[in-house]
Amino acid sequence: MTEAPTPRAPAEAAPRTVSAGPVAPTPEAACRLRPVPLGAVTITGGLWQARLQVNGEAAVPLGRERLESAGNLENLRIAAGTKKGEARGPVFMDSDVYKWLEAAAWEYARQPSRDLLDAQRDITAIVAAAQQPDGYLDSVVQIREGGERYRDLVMSHEHYCAGHLFQAAVAQVRCTGERGLLDVAVRLADHLVATFGEGRRPELDGHPEVEMGLVELHRETGNRDYLELARYFVDARGRGTLTGHGFEPAYYCDRVPIRDQVTVEGHAVRAVYLAAGAADVAIERHDAGLLQALQRQYAAMDAAKTYLTGGLGSRWEGESFGDPFELPPDRAYAETCAAVGGMQWAWRMLLATGDPAYADAAERKLLNGFLAGVSLSGAEFFYVNPLQLRSGASPDENRSPAHGRRGWFDVACCPPNIMRTLASLPGYLATTDAGGLQLHQYAPSSITAAVGGGQARISIETDYPWEGLVRIRTEQAPTAEWALSMRVPGWADGAHLRVDGEDRPVPAGSYASVRRSWRAGDTVELSLPMTVRFVEADDRIDAVRGCVAIERGPLVYAVEQAGQANGAMVDDLCVDPAGPATAEHRPDLLTGVTVVTAQGRARKRVSRGWPYPRAGDAAGRDGEDVPITAIPYFAWGNRGIGPMRVWLPRG
Amino acid sequence: MTEAPTPRAPAEAAPRTVSAGPVAPTPEAACRLRPVPLGAVTITGGLWQARLQVNGEAAVPLGRERLESAGNLENLRIAAGTKKGEARGPVFMDSDVYKWLEAAAWEYARQPSRDLLDAQRDITAIVAAAQQPDGYLDSVVQIREGGERYRDLVMSHEHYCAGHLFQAAVAQVRCTGERGLLDVAVRLADHLVATFGEGRRPELDGHPEVEMGLVELHRETGNRDYLELARYFVDARGRGTLTGHGFEPAYYCDRVPIRDQVTVEGHAVRAVYLAAGAADVAIERHDAGLLQALQRQYAAMDAAKTYLTGGLGSRWEGESFGDPFELPPDRAYAETCAAVGGMQWAWRMLLATGDPAYADAAERKLLNGFLAGVSLSGAEFFYVNPLQLRSGASPDENRSPAHGRRGWFDVACCPPNIMRTLASLPGYLATTDAGGLQLHQYAPSSITAAVGGGQARISIETDYPWEGLVRIRTEQAPTAEWALSMRVPGWADGAHLRVDGEDRPVPAGSYASVRRSWRAGDTVELSLPMTVRFVEADDRIDAVRGCVAIERGPLVYAVEQAGQANGAMVDDLCVDPAGPATAEHRPDLLTGVTVVTAQGRARKRVSRGWPYPRAGDAAGRDGEDVPITAIPYFAWGNRGIGPMRVWLPRG
Repeated sequence: MTEAPTPRAPAEAAPRTVSAGPVAPTPEAACRLRPVPLGAVTITGGLWQARLQVNGEAAVPLGRERLESAGNLENLRIAAGTKKGEARGPVFMDSDVYKWLEAAAWEYARQPSRDLLDAQRDITAIVAAAQQPDGYLDSVVQIREGGERYRDLVMSHEHYCAGHLFQAAVAQVRCTGERGLLDVAVRLADHLVATFGEGRRPELDGHPEVEMGLVELHRETGNRDYLELARYFVDARGRGTLTGHGFEPAYYCDRVPIRDQVTVEGHAVRAVYLAAGAADVAIERHDAGLLQALQRQYAAMDAAKTYLTGGLGSRWEGESFGDPFELPPDRAYAETCAAVGGMQWAWRMLLATGDPAYADAAERKLLNGFLAGVSLSGAEFFYVNPLQLRSGASPDENRSPAHGRRGWFDVACCPPNIMRTLASLPGYLATTDAGGLQLHQYAPSSITAAVGGGQARISIETDYPWEGLVRIRTEQAPTAEWALSMRVPGWADGAHLRVDGEDRPVPAGSYASVRRSWRAGDTVELSLPMTVRFVEADDRIDAVRGCVAIERGPLVYAVEQAGQANGAMVDDLCVDPAGPATAEHRPDLLTGVTVVTAQGRARKRVSRGWPYPRAGDAAGRDGEDVPITAIPYFAWGNRGIGPMRVWLPRG
Repeated sequence: MTEAPTPRAPAEAAPRTVSAGPVAPTPEAACRLRPVPLGAVTITGGLWQARLQVNGEAAVPLGRERLESAGNLENLRIAAGTKKGEARGPVFMDSDVYKWLEAAAWEYARQPSRDLLDAQRDITAIVAAAQQPDGYLDSVVQIREGGERYRDLVMSHEHYCAGHLFQAAVAQVRCTGERGLLDVAVRLADHLVATFGEGRRPELDGHPEVEMGLVELHRETGNRDYLELARYFVDARGRGTLTGHGFEPAYYCDRVPIRDQVTVEGHAVRAVYLAAGAADVAIERHDAGLLQALQRQYAAMDAAKTYLTGGLGSRWEGESFGDPFELPPDRAYAETCAAVGGMQWAWRMLLATGDPAYADAAERKLLNGFLAGVSLSGAEFFYVNPLQLRSGASPDENRSPAHGRRGWFDVACCPPNIMRTLASLPGYLATTDAGGLQLHQYAPSSITAAVGGGQARISIETDYPWEGLVRIRTEQAPTAEWALSMRVPGWADGAHLRVDGEDRPVPAGSYASVRRSWRAGDTVELSLPMTVRFVEADDRIDAVRGCVAIERGPLVYAVEQAGQANGAMVDDLCVDPAGPATAEHRPDLLTGVTVVTAQGRARKRVSRGWPYPRAGDAAGRDGEDVPITAIPYFAWGNRGIGPMRVWLPRG
């Protein structure tokens, strides 16, 4: 069997101008807000534009190469019978192909190119060729297990891979109009529907993900069987039947039914992917009970299991959430994929409820815990995102940040997850409802949206997140009244809005809304206070007792060894939160960041032997005053790797 | 092939009256101190006697049963060809059999019984029958790998199991006089000598242990080839060749040659077993350079990688040491086996150097980090020994203390390690040198030792570790002068010694020594101050910043939920180290412990949502004064499982 060429019609497919993004609820869905289509948002400059640009120029091409060199594509060719050999890599190798295809589709919508279209077609053909006649598709199982399907679904990731395929297929048809991958996805989804669910095979994949994929495939195709299967997978979970491979049911999100669960636990990516998929199910099925359970779980996560950076998962062991308030900065796992999944969950909760806290959370994750996962060059990655790295850190773990960022991983889930998230970012900026347009994330951009019975176009000018002024100009608007709503982040005490030359204060943690009949040229200005903030942690977070961290705007700051004055060692620094702290934008530094300088002290290095003296005997180490230079957390680890702290002892 | 009966001659073997203990340096060895033989020490009462008694009565018989029910013995029978079947359990199943045999031998010396002798003979016969004609022996490899030896030595534990066999064989011959297991050990050791080393196969076992076993077998048999092979294994390590199974060379103690290493890193048990074996090699080969390297490494471990309890290994991931000062109390792994290995290393360093700090360290580990690993009943175990357990801790990990103590584990290294350590404890109390007798650990006991050109016998009366008075009476002595030296622990500021009715102060962290011609009836009294001590941690130990812990005598205390006044929740407690603290012995509680009561405060429970407020906004939670009840750490988790803290916030 040779690789069948994908039918290349339309030959010169251009992206649909208003392609939907990754989450497109049906018109019947129970959501307060609906995303402005990704194709209706253009980011025109600033921080995000720069990140998206290197993602498209460096990361997406790198990913294409890695799929070849790491063996992902070869696995599919072997499964198709066009090549001979053994499967390479972990069981979920296909998912990296699908995440890359999804990234390529969103990137194609952002910046179409013939090369990128050809690459999607080529890889789609490779995928299609590997699919079995009845729709089944999983190259590693087809090769390694001699085709014995679902023998070890608790760890085989067969549904997980399918879910990523569904998301990629939806992205491809939304962005290119081509149905090659969608046809593959539908055949596989039909096979799943025929095989799993009530009255059929009851088993569950140990790694949730297929739920989101099935719901989105339902949204794209209208086939309600997919939604029903997603609902089954959500509700069947939590019976304690998933064990093995050294893990207990909690690891697999299978200890407690999701409707009874009151927190998040176990493997962090599994938990948030499941929750995001369940949110999709709740929205589409008008399932208020399920939504309430998810609100409760999200609140518990936010209050006791989330890092300052928005990072999720405090344990390396099992890549899992810890106990409540178990949030060590040094051993934070905070997997990049968990930040992606957490953002996906927050976004769906925002759509369902309209609560700005979810938009705050999405922003915190995107600009901190997520964005730290990729280098400024776009092509090197962190799998694990701690809030502290000590001097003398031993690189004794493959994924340790002590190695510095890496070009790929043996388990390569994170890099293509970053790629698809960045490429689809325009889909997460704005929503509409019956009353108007809501802006959740701020970037220099142009947004077209259906409001007031017509089409409005606005443009946004801002230096956010470096400066707090966001100027929104109406370029075109229907004559009817509609409301323009702007998120005022929870940290933005003292924000105000200028409309028609008049300033009014707007409360933090809300939407500042202006309802009127808009005309071209109308402008409003949101001013968010960009003072440097010192924050502390709830005293139940034992691991950072007595410490403070620096924030400014939506950014969490980090102090890394590179750039410290007078050779002061990060391990020895403490900071006085009552002292002065200043911010300065440095266009030359780290592709342009605003640096915070605070007043600190470098304690003398001493060697003490047994480190547990009588209380009071350990007089504070002497030290000298030094300025402390902090950079945005997302930018750390781009000048070599060295000691870093988000939390600094007071003193 | 049927199980060959072990020749049972002498039929009524009694233990040798003065059997050597687990570490018996040769007369030529370069050590400052030599252990008083285990058979020359009888513990007659007190805490250790109680622990040893339940070990012999409950744990050792339990172990015998588990070796059968878990499949360890069956594996050996299958390997021998007397049974059919597949191997069960992890690759190192044989080592549990050997550790149990070692425990049985020491226990037989302590309290001989016909049953225990028969059990040793029966199991020895099962082991002997599985050995292959050329001496090779590893049941799991013989069964699973179709006999292909050393195919995956980095993880197969073939040498590791051999090392435990050697230690068991030496124990058996020392305590029973029977040579059945020693014959097996010698055949296997000769096979190893013929197979590995310079000019032969160069590979190393991924898990050190064989080094200690080979040196002890050398000591027992006089065969220097075994010492030489141990030296080879020590020196060949550290070339970065051991990788795989998801781990980097540091995990396998293979990143840095041991002579160049300046700290401990990687898998904690591997690291301390290697170091203990290297210390044996250094002692027997008069290798001062190697000993210096080990002193440096031990000091680095003590200063930056040891828990207050003496526990070792701060990471669950890879069961490994963390970076310097990375010592989280909640996620402390502090494997019971690491406490055993750490004590074994400390004991060898004490023999080599005579430095009382090593005896302090051995005591800290034995009475805290090690002893916590076994229940007061003797038959339930902790694999992992954290210094904190939160309320709401999810038992999502098989080895989690949140499950409570367990009767056995799928990886059952710890239980028989506890058994052999407790059973051999009399071997770790005292040493001699040319000048006299040194007492390192205090228990009601009778000790016979060769001093002053003759034989001395002393008896010790004490309620240590509950009370600080240790009364030592000479029962019999040669006429020549010799010195009686008593360890004054590093914490014992204000200790004094009463000799001939006169008190003199003795400095903490030294040996108080009295040299004279002793006569029967002579008595000295060492008084150690048993005030309650609050200790704090070096400020580089971020995880317990702002906290204090309670110690009294050699014991670290813990506050567990059971027994707290007025339902105060452990998670909410803080303590004032300047407040009063009292101690009371409670013979009724936990088989008799001294309880410490301190003045604390229970902060009100609040729910705050996002847990990172602006610095200063999080006003301390209100609270009410409550007495805090602390028990010895080793006794926690014996009244069900619940929240526990060693480190309490100040306040």
